[in-house]
This record gives sequence, C-alpha cells and structure tokens, in this order.
Amino acid sequence: MVETDRSSGPSTARLEAFSDGVLAIAITLLILEIRVPEVQPGGSLARSLWDLWPKYATFAVSFVTIGIMWVNHHALFDRVVRIDRRLMFLNLLLLGAICFLPFPTAVLGDYVTDPTQGHIAAALYGINMLAVGIGFLALWRHLLTHPELRAHDFEDEHVRAGLRRTIVGPIVYCVAIGLAFLSAPAALVLFAVLAVYFAVGRISRTRA
Amino acid sequence: MVETDRSSGPSTARLEAFSDGVLAIAITLLILEIRVPEVQPGGSLARSLWDLWPKYATFAVSFVTIGIMWVNHHALFDRVVRIDRRLMFLNLLLLGAICFLPFPTAVLGDYVTDPTQGHIAAALYGINMLAVGIGFLALWRHLLTHPELRAHDFEDEHVRAGLRRTIVGPIVYCVAIGLAFLSAPAALVLFAVLAVYFAVGRISRTRA
Amino acid sequence: MVETDRSSGPSTARLEAFSDGVLAIAITLLILEIRVPEVQPGGSLARSLWDLWPKYATFAVSFVTIGIMWVNHHALFDRVVRIDRRLMFLNLLLLGAICFLPFPTAVLGDYVTDPTQGHIAAALYGINMLAVGIGFLALWRHLLTHPELRAHDFEDEHVRAGLRRTIVGPIVYCVAIGLAFLSAPAALVLFAVLAVYFAVGRISRTRA
Amino acid sequence: MVETDRSSGPSTARLEAFSDGVLAIAITLLILEIRVPEVQPGGSLARSLWDLWPKYATFAVSFVTIGIMWVNHHALFDRVVRIDRRLMFLNLLLLGAICFLPFPTAVLGDYVTDPTQGHIAAALYGINMLAVGIGFLALWRHLLTHPELRAHDFEDEHVRAGLRRTIVGPIVYCVAIGLAFLSAPAALVLFAVLAVYFAVGRISRTRA
Repeated sequence: MVETDRSSGPSTARLEAFSDGVLAIAITLLILEIRVPEVQPGGSLARSLWDLWPKYATFAVSFVTIGIMWVNHHALFDRVVRIDRRLMFLNLLLLGAICFLPFPTAVLGDYVTDPTQGHIAAALYGINMLAVGIGFLALWRHLLTHPELRAHDFEDEHVRAGLRRTIVGPIVYCVAIGLAFLSAPAALVLFAVLAVYFAVGRISRTRA
Repeated sequence: MVETDRSSGPSTARLEAFSDGVLAIAITLLILEIRVPEVQPGGSLARSLWDLWPKYATFAVSFVTIGIMWVNHHALFDRVVRIDRRLMFLNLLLLGAICFLPFPTAVLGDYVTDPTQGHIAAALYGINMLAVGIGFLALWRHLLTHPELRAHDFEDEHVRAGLRRTIVGPIVYCVAIGLAFLSAPAALVLFAVLAVYFAVGRISRTRA
Repeated sequence: MVETDRSSGPSTARLEAFSDGVLAIAITLLILEIRVPEVQPGGSLARSLWDLWPKYATFAVSFVTIGIMWVNHHALFDRVVRIDRRLMFLNLLLLGAICFLPFPTAVLGDYVTDPTQGHIAAALYGINMLAVGIGFLALWRHLLTHPELRAHDFEDEHVRAGLRRTIVGPIVYCVAIGLAFLSAPAALVLFAVLAVYFAVGRISRTRA
Repeated sequence: MVETDRSSGPSTARLEAFSDGVLAIAITLLILEIRVPEVQPGGSLARSLWDLWPKYATFAVSFVTIGIMWVNHHALFDRVVRIDRRLMFLNLLLLGAICFLPFPTAVLGDYVTDPTQGHIAAALYGINMLAVGIGFLALWRHLLTHPELRAHDFEDEHVRAGLRRTIVGPIVYCVAIGLAFLSAPAALVLFAVLAVYFAVGRISRTRA
C-alpha cells in the first residue's frame, strides 16, 4: 500500500541532509563555550587569554573528532539505499550523543587542570565518546543483519570490515576513561592523539 | 499570469529544506541549556554533574521528541505537491512552536525536582507540546480540505488516517498537563514514555 | 575565459541555500534570548514566567517577521538566473541586517515595559527592520537596472511591482519608529500587526 | 575495489553542503556575542546601546569577512571534481579556524577601546584571520600538486593565479598584527578596510 510504504521513513537523502545539518551545528556551537575573559584591574588580557589554553585544546580536539564522525557517518550512509524506522531511531540516538559533546567539552576545558576534579571531567568526556562509538556500532550491526537496506555491491564482508574498524573507537575510549582517573591532562593528550590518528590513519589508508 | 503563480509561495523542496534546517538547529540548541556547574571549594564535580540529571533527562526527552516531529513533518510533506500561502503560514506557526521548546525544556530541567514550582514547569512543557500537536493537526486539516495540494494517490482516507494518528498527541499531552499538577516528575516520566512510544510504535507499525 | 567566468560568483542555487541556512539559524536563535527565570525564595515560578510575556511577544513577532522575510527572499531569487558580485554583496548586507535582529528583539523584550527606556528599545527594533527593508529595496533596484540577471519572463513591470510592494515596509517602519517615541508598547503592537498583515495579505493576494 | 573507493571520502557536493552549513552557522552565531546591556538606575539605555559600538563594528567586520570567505571557498571547490582525505582534512582545519572567529570577534569588541589591553585583542583577531588565510593557502597548494582533483579545464596557471590572490590575505593580516601593537582601533579600521576591499575588489574585477 502506498501509504504504509511512504510512511516507512524518510529517504536516505533527507536523513543524510538532516544529519549533516545537526553535525554542522554541533561542531559550530563548540566555540560558544569559550567566553571572553574578564580582566581584573591591573591584570593582563594576554595572560587571561593564555590561561584559556585548555578551552582551545578541547575545542580543537572536539572539532576534529566531530569532523571525523561526519566523515564516518557519510561513509556509512553512502552505502545505504533504504532506511527502516529502527535505523532512523538508532541514527537519532547517535546524533543525540554527538549533540551532547559540547557539554563534556566545556566541562573538560574548565576542569582539566584541576588536580582533584579533572579526573571526573576527563572521564565524562570519554564516556560521551564511548556512547558515540557504541552508536556507530549499533548502526553497523543493524546493517549487518538487514542486508535489504544496503546497496547490492555492499556485501557482508564489507560490513564486517566496517564493524571491525568501528570497534577500535569504543575500545580505546575505554582505555582513555581509565587513564582519566590517573591523569586528566594525559587523557586529553590521548583524546587529541586519537583524533589525529583517526584522521591521518584514514588518509594513509586511502593513499596506500 | 506567471508572476502571480510564482509568488504564490516557495516550492515544496525549499519549504522542506528550510523546515529541516530549523528542526536541525532547534534539536542541537538544546545542549546549550546545560551549563558547566561551578564547584564550590571542597565540593565535588562528580556530585555537581550527578545533580544535573534532570537537565540530561529533559535534554533526552526533547531530543527524541523533536526527532520524531521531524519524521512526522517529513511524512506529511512527502505527500504534498503544491504549497499555498496558508499552508506555508501554518507551517511557520508549527516551526515557531517547535523552536520554542528549548525554553520549557530548560525550565523543566531546572525546576522538575522543586516541590512547589515543579508543577508549573511541567505544565509549561506540556502546553508547548500541546501547541506543537495542534500545529500538526492544523496542517493535516488544511490538507483534508485542500486536495489540490496533495499527491494524487494521497486520498481523503489517508489524510483522515493521518488526522486520527495525529490527534493522539494533543490528547495525551492534555492528560500530561493535568498530571503535572499532581507530580512534576511523574509528568516528566510520561513525556519520556510518550517519546519512546511514538518512536517505537512507528517502528512496529512499519515492521508489521 | 573560463576562470574569470567561474569566479564571477556562486550559483543561484548555492546562494539561495546559504541564505536559507542563515535565515533558518537566525530564526531559531531567537529562543536563546529567553532565559530561565530565577525564582526568589517565597516567589512563584508561575508569576516569573508570566512576567516574561514581553519576551514571548517579541519572540513571536520576530519569528513571524523573519519567516515572511524568508518567503520574500525566495520570491525574489526565484526569478534570478544569474548572480553578479554586487548582487551577492547586497544580499550579504541584507543577511547581516536580518542576523542582527535577535539583538533588538532581546532589547525590546527586556525594556518594552520600561516607561523611560522603552522608547529607545522600540526605536532600535524599528531601525533594524528599516535596514532590512532598505536591503530588500536595494536588491530589487539592482534587478531593475540589470535585466540580464533575471529570468526572461520576469519583465521590468514585474520588478517595478515588486519594488512598489517592497517600499511599503520601510515606510511603515518609519512610522513605527516615530510611534516608538510616543509609546513603546504601542510600537510593539504595530510590529505585530505588520507581521500578521504581511503574512495574511500575501495569503489573500494568492487566493484572489 | 568498490569499498576502498567509496571510503576515500565524501563527494564534492556533500563536502560543500557541510562547509556551507558550518559557515552559515558561524556567521549567524556572531550576534550572540552582543548581550543586552543592563541599565543602571538613573542611566540611559540609549547611552548604553551607543557604548556598544565596538561590538557592532566587530560584528559587521566579521560578518562581511566570513561572507567573503564563503565566496572564496565556493570559488575554489567549484573547480574541484574529486576529494581526497588530505583535502578533506585541510578543509576541516580551515573550517575550524573560521568557526573560532566569533571568539576573537567578541574579545575585540570588548577590549578594542581599552588602552592597555586593546593591543592583544586586536592581535588575537589578526592571528585568527592569518590562520584562516594560511588554511586557504594550504588548500590551493594541495590543488596545485594534485591536478587529478581538479576539473580538466582548471589548469596549473589558474591554480597559481588563485595562490597569488590568496597570499595577499596572510601578508596584509601580518601587517595588521603589527599595527595592532601600535593602535587597536587603527587595526580594527584596517580589518574593516580589508573586508570592504576584498568584497568590492572582487566586484570590480568581475565587472571589468
């Protein structure tokens, strides 16, 4: 029946456009968490701006990470030709986890250098990243068990390869959460290394 | 005359793209209402973050709900082939009600656990949801009385089925507003149940 | 030469998409200017929410007005087939004036009921609206003197009709600025009436 | 192999749409940095609004500058037919630099008239602009050394001409950073002149 068929969910193109919009906004909102410092009389703006370095660092890490998420999201949906409601709902949960990122980013930027509270801030950041990774895993797994949603040249082995690549993220973020309780700055460095690794690793793979 | 015809309103594609943009932004702005907690000397960030649970809960409920609104909006306009000015204006009012949601979401997140003020906060949230539901009803009703705007295989009975499904929302949100005056947390639970119900119910219907 | 030709500016489709994006964001950001009220001990959230009515009123007026601007913007660019740099630059100035609107909206929402400061707040709002109206006039005028940018069935008389319709806005907003110095609430009522008039007037014209 | 090929990066169209979205949001967020002034008892809103002129000025300069960046970004990607991962990553860094702009804009708006702190604020703004310019240079340079990414009528000489035009930006922003340490307001004037020059200069070139 036409009506049921049509109501079965939005087209791939529109879901991708909506997801692109949400990701573009989430990545841009990050800057709003860096507020203009108020310089005390006798103080120095240069010093105040310098002291904000954890905010710049977390901005940069989250920006690159969401950018990579956008690429991965695209790489996945590029091979999807049909969308069922469950895929749409899983995608919505994934977008929700990504949209949440500006909050842990701001918390980490404020507390990473705090010797007592930094651990929790870094762990929160890692937990959010873990949730995003699990969201991607859930999408890939749904595609594995629903071949009818995939382009016909996108075979089981490709999906399994995607799953294997995707599972790296949650594993390393579990490690990062553990590291957060040893040292918050070290966890931030690991988050940065992971962002660059995922970005550059993908570049290398493509060029090979 | 060409000019009158062209000035009769934007194309379906552009109205949908504009609506998609507005919904994508409204859903993403929700996170801005969760502010980094300031930990008092001797306090604990972990405890402060934990105390923000009503903010996370209202974020999650509003996120899923706006996501479902996006799906419903798309399902409706997917069957519209022409747009008149009244449809455009009704759509604008609907978008306005949805764009307002971050405010009641923030109010509910701040006051849901307040034993005296929580009722009003939950009622405000329900009223906003009711307004959104009425907005959808108005769109469906306009389509019922204006068959010339619909795809030719989208018949009166389909529109009436859409109207019947759509009327469930306003009714349950009226109940929720009443419940708000008994218990704000209970109303929040109902809002969450409704979001999941609408999302999963649609999934089941599609799979059946 | 290919290069010069291509560098002469973005395509109509991309300029429209960019403008749509900017308008969709500007309209959605309006809600951020309504902050959750802090209820004093012994105070009432219901009363605090009620006292925010000027914020709701200015939100509604600006939302509908930007929505109408979007329709007008689309109606204009729908008949443009080529874009030169000056049109692009005039469009950028127009978008700048529209993006500025959340600020006067917030100022008016905060001060409209202030008997001494309200006049300035209402005048500022009117001046911003006037600037937007002049921006539209400049676009129409550029199209009048550059027929090579227009669709071939979009003739001088149509552009002149568009100019005549567009000039109504700046004139009434000049009146509103004058009224602001007599009564800020009266000016707000006029802004609301104008928004509804433009929206409904366009509906009537289409149905006639 | 199909899978490797597809995973080599998003299509030009989708990268452009994502970049457009990010730029449209960054340009619109600028207004959020202008906050409603609080008038002290006995004070004047007119005077408070007047005193915000540095915020309006920096808003205008950044708005026009990001607008020109959008045009330049489009002019570049208009001639790109394939995207490799490195181009995507360089584009992400460029977008990151542009998304950062609301922060220096807000800092400059708050401190440009401060005789001791203004220098740093203006220098920060110039450094951000310099970073954006270098980002554009990196994109052009990558295109120069990777002809396989370009449209076939987009030859080496065109890319070199683009590089030469693009290098003007970083050079003048270096001058502006130096000027910032002499006079912050003078540097702001230079930023404004540059924005108008780039916009109008491009218009003249097109008309010639």
